[in-house]
Amino acid sequence: MTLLTTFTERAAELDRNDKLASFRERFVIPDDVIYLDGNSLGLMASTVPERLGHLTESEWSHGLIRSWSTAGWFDLPLTVGNRIAPIIGAGADEVAVGESTSVNLFRCMVTAMLHNAPRSTILVEAENFPTDSYMAESVAALMPTASLRSFDEDLASALDDDVALVVLSHVDYRSAKIRDMAAITKAAHAAGALVLWDISHSVGAVPCDVTGADTDFAVGCTYKYLNGGPGAPAFTWINPRHMDNLRQPLLGWMGHRDPFAFAPEYAPAPGARQLVCGTPQVLSLATLDEALKIWDELDLDALYAKGRALTEFFVEAVMTTCPAGSVTLAGPSDPYERGNHVSLDIAEGGFEIMQALYERGVIGDFRQPSLMRFGFAPLYTSFSEVAAAAAHLVDLLATGAWRDVAPTERLPGT
Amino acid sequence: MTLLTTFTERAAELDRNDKLASFRERFVIPDDVIYLDGNSLGLMASTVPERLGHLTESEWSHGLIRSWSTAGWFDLPLTVGNRIAPIIGAGADEVAVGESTSVNLFRCMVTAMLHNAPRSTILVEAENFPTDSYMAESVAALMPTASLRSFDEDLASALDDDVALVVLSHVDYRSAKIRDMAAITKAAHAAGALVLWDISHSVGAVPCDVTGADTDFAVGCTYKYLNGGPGAPAFTWINPRHMDNLRQPLLGWMGHRDPFAFAPEYAPAPGARQLVCGTPQVLSLATLDEALKIWDELDLDALYAKGRALTEFFVEAVMTTCPAGSVTLAGPSDPYERGNHVSLDIAEGGFEIMQALYERGVIGDFRQPSLMRFGFAPLYTSFSEVAAAAAHLVDLLATGAWRDVAPTERLPGT
Repeated sequence: MTLLTTFTERAAELDRNDKLASFRERFVIPDDVIYLDGNSLGLMASTVPERLGHLTESEWSHGLIRSWSTAGWFDLPLTVGNRIAPIIGAGADEVAVGESTSVNLFRCMVTAMLHNAPRSTILVEAENFPTDSYMAESVAALMPTASLRSFDEDLASALDDDVALVVLSHVDYRSAKIRDMAAITKAAHAAGALVLWDISHSVGAVPCDVTGADTDFAVGCTYKYLNGGPGAPAFTWINPRHMDNLRQPLLGWMGHRDPFAFAPEYAPAPGARQLVCGTPQVLSLATLDEALKIWDELDLDALYAKGRALTEFFVEAVMTTCPAGSVTLAGPSDPYERGNHVSLDIAEGGFEIMQALYERGVIGDFRQPSLMRFGFAPLYTSFSEVAAAAAHLVDLLATGAWRDVAPTERLPGT
Repeated sequence: MTLLTTFTERAAELDRNDKLASFRERFVIPDDVIYLDGNSLGLMASTVPERLGHLTESEWSHGLIRSWSTAGWFDLPLTVGNRIAPIIGAGADEVAVGESTSVNLFRCMVTAMLHNAPRSTILVEAENFPTDSYMAESVAALMPTASLRSFDEDLASALDDDVALVVLSHVDYRSAKIRDMAAITKAAHAAGALVLWDISHSVGAVPCDVTGADTDFAVGCTYKYLNGGPGAPAFTWINPRHMDNLRQPLLGWMGHRDPFAFAPEYAPAPGARQLVCGTPQVLSLATLDEALKIWDELDLDALYAKGRALTEFFVEAVMTTCPAGSVTLAGPSDPYERGNHVSLDIAEGGFEIMQALYERGVIGDFRQPSLMRFGFAPLYTSFSEVAAAAAHLVDLLATGAWRDVAPTERLPGT
């Protein structure tokens, strides 16, 4: 019995004992792929087309403008926010959904700088997701007193009495490393700084408790583990203690206390509703709302445990059966310190190997210069899929068969 | 023969001679309503559900992450922008679609202030749409040198050598008055100011030529006359002469020259692609793309002529048959100076009359304190509908039957 056969048998056993296995049936899963990119775009819940059908053929085309009230469109940013709240440890009516993660990051950064003046430094982790760094760059350029500094791992020595805001990702999009939200927030607060967490790669994948950590701002996207669909709107949470007399820059009419008074002066709506900006993106919000219904039934602890088990199983299967030294685990080896994706560093051929995996129906992604990234969304990924994907990868590494694959300029979606 | 019978007969004749009449069949139109609110939410093109079905059941659920390239998702902000460009007089690859009008207004305002420093005044028309004023208020608060002033009709005397930017709506959302884009832009430029036009209420309704007017910025929404659906994303055009070394604040990763290099420093993509910010809103963009296909077949001059004829016909029908003094036309009487909606000012009962019209299946809207607003989207509105709506309104005004309607706190959508 080969090592890989062992993993196949173990996977079958793990699948039989998987209490979350039935959730897989709630998604449309193509027969011909093993999808390990739910960390980039989640699968579609099978009820989404019906919901969109109702939205277009009843609410829009027959309800027309009346649906803003009769179909609850006006409230969707908060309705959907209330579905996300328990997943991130937020309270009722504290989360607003709309616009993109990029725009919401910008908003929270400006807000933090206004609230923590005269401090003027934005501290951004050097390896953060690009939008986070670009937006910090922009805010620093825009606000004359602001300046930008980056830090690399060692936050403690980067904190000084001019730091107004620290911007971090809860789960690193490359290494999958989980930051200790509570400890980092505490250290930043002790130094007088506010903290903005980008939880795009952690929401729905690892435990996240913005209230428990008593942090200041959290922003995240909904098309990854929350399965909101391509380009689904992002969410914003701001600690209620900052919400009185909040000074935030995106004063859209939909965040006004009485939008239909069309008053010349801005007066914010109470709570997170003031974070709604332009007209809510109804099609995307309804799709996300539908996808999130599944979460009402979920035991989050069981979900996170399965996420850890999936990544651990993949790492073990690959690392114990691949040719020695062919790949290196790029992130933490302890599954409790890792999000639901695994990055493998490879000296040569990472792009082409991912391309060869695509041709075999295994979909992950590749991040320059040398990371093969595989996501394991616990809602719908089976251990048998993980074993099969690992077997394909190890086969390609062992045989070098990837060298025969015709190169393309770019993998789809990368 | 009563006056109203005359209008009914004239309407039938106008419908028989309407060269655009067949476009009505391209939309889902409920049997039981006369929809005069396309200036707020356009009707659904009948091919939208099929397009969304393809998007969800093929592109998303089977193409998965690969659809970013294989289904053209990545390019949608520019693809859709190129459909809007000929409607507003913009060139190819000059229009980007994404986020909301509110966010895009903010972006253009900040950009203008950066480009026209050290001038520091933002000049906003007093009666502009609230988001435009609120965002100007925000930009003035955010940029320490900036200050806000409003003007009321008399732009010439408001312009001085400190005005950096003038913000106006091309068509006023209340009175429907069209501003002379070319003349105002010329006057502002002569005084050293830049101009940002909100064309939300003019795009697809009246002639609009941002290039011909040589203006600086134009932003607009797509869920009104363009029929993009509830909360459809907004568009932004920036004059190409400002695009070299553009300094704009929303530096999202999708506007980067090479987003998938995940480079730590921002470098803008060429042209309007740098105006893409977060991940494109694919569901909404595809819906809008589908709705805009109809525009490929349209003679825009014929469309605008029908828009003028519809509003003129409604004004004539109401004003010549209603009880003397019961309503006043709140906007221009010359249809060439008016957008595709008509606002009627009424001393008493405007809200209740609109409610009574709703109960008779005539859908317009009401704007505080006293405006009944009726929109006449020329793509799908018939003259017979206009005659019937006018007859209902006049009947309510003449009989006072609206006094019997049970009051509700708020009309749907208002």
